[in-house]
Amino acid sequence: MGLVAKYGGDYKDIPYLIKLNSKTNLVKKDQMDPQSFSWYTVEDVVKFKEASGLKILAVGYTVYSGSEFEGQMLHEAAQAVFQAHQHGLFTVLWMYPRGKALADEKDPHLVAGAAGVAGCLGSDFTKVNYPKPKEGNRAEALREAVVAAGRTKLICAGGGSVEVKDFLQTLHDQLHISGTYGNATGRNIHQKSIDEAVRFANAVSALTYDKVSVDDAYAIYKG
Amino acid sequence: MGLVAKYGGDYKDIPYLIKLNSKTNLVKKDQMDPQSFSWYTVEDVVKFKEASGLKILAVGYTVYSGSEFEGQMLHEAAQAVFQAHQHGLFTVLWMYPRGKALADEKDPHLVAGAAGVAGCLGSDFTKVNYPKPKEGNRAEALREAVVAAGRTKLICAGGGSVEVKDFLQTLHDQLHISGTYGNATGRNIHQKSIDEAVRFANAVSALTYDKVSVDDAYAIYKG
Amino acid sequence: MGLVAKYGGDYKDIPYLIKLNSKTNLVKKDQMDPQSFSWYTVEDVVKFKEASGLKILAVGYTVYSGSEFEGQMLHEAAQAVFQAHQHGLFTVLWMYPRGKALADEKDPHLVAGAAGVAGCLGSDFTKVNYPKPKEGNRAEALREAVVAAGRTKLICAGGGSVEVKDFLQTLHDQLHISGTYGNATGRNIHQKSIDEAVRFANAVSALTYDKVSVDDAYAIYKG
Amino acid sequence: MGLVAKYGGDYKDIPYLIKLNSKTNLVKKDQMDPQSFSWYTVEDVVKFKEASGLKILAVGYTVYSGSEFEGQMLHEAAQAVFQAHQHGLFTVLWMYPRGKALADEKDPHLVAGAAGVAGCLGSDFTKVNYPKPKEGNRAEALREAVVAAGRTKLICAGGGSVEVKDFLQTLHDQLHISGTYGNATGRNIHQKSIDEAVRFANAVSALTYDKVSVDDAYAIYKG
Amino acid sequence: MGLVAKYGGDYKDIPYLIKLNSKTNLVKKDQMDPQSFSWYTVEDVVKFKEASGLKILAVGYTVYSGSEFEGQMLHEAAQAVFQAHQHGLFTVLWMYPRGKALADEKDPHLVAGAAGVAGCLGSDFTKVNYPKPKEGNRAEALREAVVAAGRTKLICAGGGSVEVKDFLQTLHDQLHISGTYGNATGRNIHQKSIDEAVRFANAVSALTYDKVSVDDAYAIYKG
Repeated sequence: MGLVAKYGGDYKDIPYLIKLNSKTNLVKKDQMDPQSFSWYTVEDVVKFKEASGLKILAVGYTVYSGSEFEGQMLHEAAQAVFQAHQHGLFTVLWMYPRGKALADEKDPHLVAGAAGVAGCLGSDFTKVNYPKPKEGNRAEALREAVVAAGRTKLICAGGGSVEVKDFLQTLHDQLHISGTYGNATGRNIHQKSIDEAVRFANAVSALTYDKVSVDDAYAIYKG
Repeated sequence: MGLVAKYGGDYKDIPYLIKLNSKTNLVKKDQMDPQSFSWYTVEDVVKFKEASGLKILAVGYTVYSGSEFEGQMLHEAAQAVFQAHQHGLFTVLWMYPRGKALADEKDPHLVAGAAGVAGCLGSDFTKVNYPKPKEGNRAEALREAVVAAGRTKLICAGGGSVEVKDFLQTLHDQLHISGTYGNATGRNIHQKSIDEAVRFANAVSALTYDKVSVDDAYAIYKG
Repeated sequence: MGLVAKYGGDYKDIPYLIKLNSKTNLVKKDQMDPQSFSWYTVEDVVKFKEASGLKILAVGYTVYSGSEFEGQMLHEAAQAVFQAHQHGLFTVLWMYPRGKALADEKDPHLVAGAAGVAGCLGSDFTKVNYPKPKEGNRAEALREAVVAAGRTKLICAGGGSVEVKDFLQTLHDQLHISGTYGNATGRNIHQKSIDEAVRFANAVSALTYDKVSVDDAYAIYKG
Repeated sequence: MGLVAKYGGDYKDIPYLIKLNSKTNLVKKDQMDPQSFSWYTVEDVVKFKEASGLKILAVGYTVYSGSEFEGQMLHEAAQAVFQAHQHGLFTVLWMYPRGKALADEKDPHLVAGAAGVAGCLGSDFTKVNYPKPKEGNRAEALREAVVAAGRTKLICAGGGSVEVKDFLQTLHDQLHISGTYGNATGRNIHQKSIDEAVRFANAVSALTYDKVSVDDAYAIYKG
Repeated sequence: MGLVAKYGGDYKDIPYLIKLNSKTNLVKKDQMDPQSFSWYTVEDVVKFKEASGLKILAVGYTVYSGSEFEGQMLHEAAQAVFQAHQHGLFTVLWMYPRGKALADEKDPHLVAGAAGVAGCLGSDFTKVNYPKPKEGNRAEALREAVVAAGRTKLICAGGGSVEVKDFLQTLHDQLHISGTYGNATGRNIHQKSIDEAVRFANAVSALTYDKVSVDDAYAIYKG
């Protein structure tokens, strides 16, 4: 949150989510199961929100369920949700099953189990990876996770850069077949030029909030 | 406890027990002994009880005795009981011997020892798995744990779904032969339809509180 | 300390010692060195003493010296003694050398070293196991530990059930040859009937406090 | 910070940076990944600054990213930056990728990734090692790290003693080709005589702040 | 500090140093690197000093540099020095390089490095073992450590019992060749009779404070 205080003032209207924990990707899971400690507490975020005047609406936390260190992360995630709700902040839990114990991180039942943990933890939202069933439709496989999450709303990780039309079709399937509440898009936006990224984000927005068709969304992207 | 605050208001009359710790079942004991950290403190629960107006009567905690991490769990369980009693909350300790050190988790002496630990910790109730003696009657084998628990009341874990009549007979045996104070039923209820589950729960209630016979309880279930 | 608050009121005149830490015996030392965390702090005990009105005079703590985890236990024991003395409570340290590093837990020099640690920690009392020298008299071997403990008074663990006369002779030897200040008797009392246990306890008391002979103590036991 | 309080008074005008963590170099990474705990908190530094009257402007912290212990260091670094900024102190993060997971600590992409972490942590400055690309120019390779650091200003570690002219040329390249904001010089200064060291420091200063040419800087060194 | 409160009153004029951490010598370094946690905080010592009225002037802490656990000890040592100085207490750091990483604990450069760490930690004094160079004079080899310690005054560990004259000669060499500020003598005093120990201590005192010759010190010892 360091320099945001100095420069974030340029973007006062943007709603922020502060991610509470993170790690590098240098230590691989065959060496050690993933471990990610909190960088900040919710109390830190509240203090920062007041000092900076930024529009901070939510906090996020990643739980690597199935890691030998999941106990510490489940504890921190539970506390993050409990405290965030006391301060009127939304929560998003990144639920990423990962560790030596797990043969296939994208197994639909495993992803659904992770979404269920986010539900137990009482998060408003959970972000999961798009499952890859051995057979059958991915969007249908994701539906199990949406159900398992209960009243916790599920959003899907965007993954690596793909063709725009394919991306929009996948998102449409997730929203309408799986029942997700949105999508966390990163590389598909910031690896484009500003102009293209804005058009792309507008297309995603129309798909998600206005429920337009894939073709209409693509037309928005095409400008 | 997150979303309960938002939605629990629908069920203001239901008595709740808040489980303080939990884990996934992804890391198996041949990889690492079970470890379950607190998600919430008793103080968190008290704060939440006041804010939500929910009828929270008890807290629960699981101790995996025999795990290489039992030291941390015994510490947290002792603190949970000590603090809960200061706030007028009942306590239930899930006492589950588990770890590389243990060849047979359902050995009656091991289960009795675990029940005795709950007694040492001063819990009001303890929940144990139904022991499986190498020879002889299971209900009689469980009596040793009831005695070992002392003034701590013992309730038995329900286990997987079984035939209703068998379930009721087993519960009757536990109550009348072993001397348990009840039963923690999960899958045998929530894997039935609502209507069947309600009749089933009524039968269990009649067996436990009204001391009816197995046949009478079964008749209640049959409606 | 949980249920003691509820039921302890029956025995208001009995002086209590609250043991601050404990563990199960399920994890053996060839699997992992012994580790025993505090269940309660001295502050918890003081709070409980005031709330319960019980006659709590002392706290106890077990240190497994020679364990890979001795650092944590030495820290907690030092704090327990320091804090107990501030609150007018006596302290007893169970000093049990145990761990992969130790070939013979009952080596007289090892027991004496452990007693010396209790002295360094400033405890009022220390409880040690009865050493077994390779040659020579056990009671004489224990004298080394009494000297090593300095101003900390040494009491000897009772061990498993033995013949009454043998028990009384051993205790007499410990008191008069070794120079101990008493004996911590468990199984030799609670594995007897109430009536026999009371007579036995009276015999032990006469030996310890009235310095009677073994024959006279035995006559008390015989009633 | 111990004796600085006593003797630092001699140098009231010198701006100080207090390094918050450190370690010896005795345990090598093939034995254990690097681990460096905080010695002091920012709160300690602030207290010390007030008591000593010294001109303390900044705090520093080393993160060994890629170490199995990076989680603890990332947590402490995040807290250090967050707290330092609340007290008006600048921050410098030493970002040193190190650990069994890393084949080549001076890989330009790895160094750039580490600089990016410092940016995420919101530090004012980050100090990195000078990368060694398998092919091509080192100063150009470092530019990637400068970009990755974002608004966090990058300074380069000085390394072992080298020829003065070579040192000045390298620094010039870093400033003008890579885009660094300075250089952290140690052994190249304190392994010289006082007189030579002063002339050397003047040359470095002229290069860095006055943007003089290498020849002019060398002339300053030559006196 | 336990019983000192009770009995220390006999020796009100003796200046005390309270050692903050300690360990047994049972776990050897081929099993596990040395680990020594704090028993007391400086705040505990200050409280105790006030309650007991004893003349407590200093605190001590042992750092096993080169141990896999040095991070925890460096942290505790830094805090001990920082806090002690705030309370007007002197500090002595026992700097003992020890661990699997170190082939020769008495290597002069290693001892000097450890002394330098005590200097970085800002301690008033540091106690090191007498180095054993592969070749050359020990007292000269120790001079490197005296220099490395900077403004931290160095005192040398006494080691096992040796001939009195040899001891006095060694101490003289350390004071006058190495530049130490004294010597920490244990076994060479307490393994003598009271009378001999007093004469010995007087000889040591004369050597150290009055700078007498070895022969004169020996004469004092001889009485």
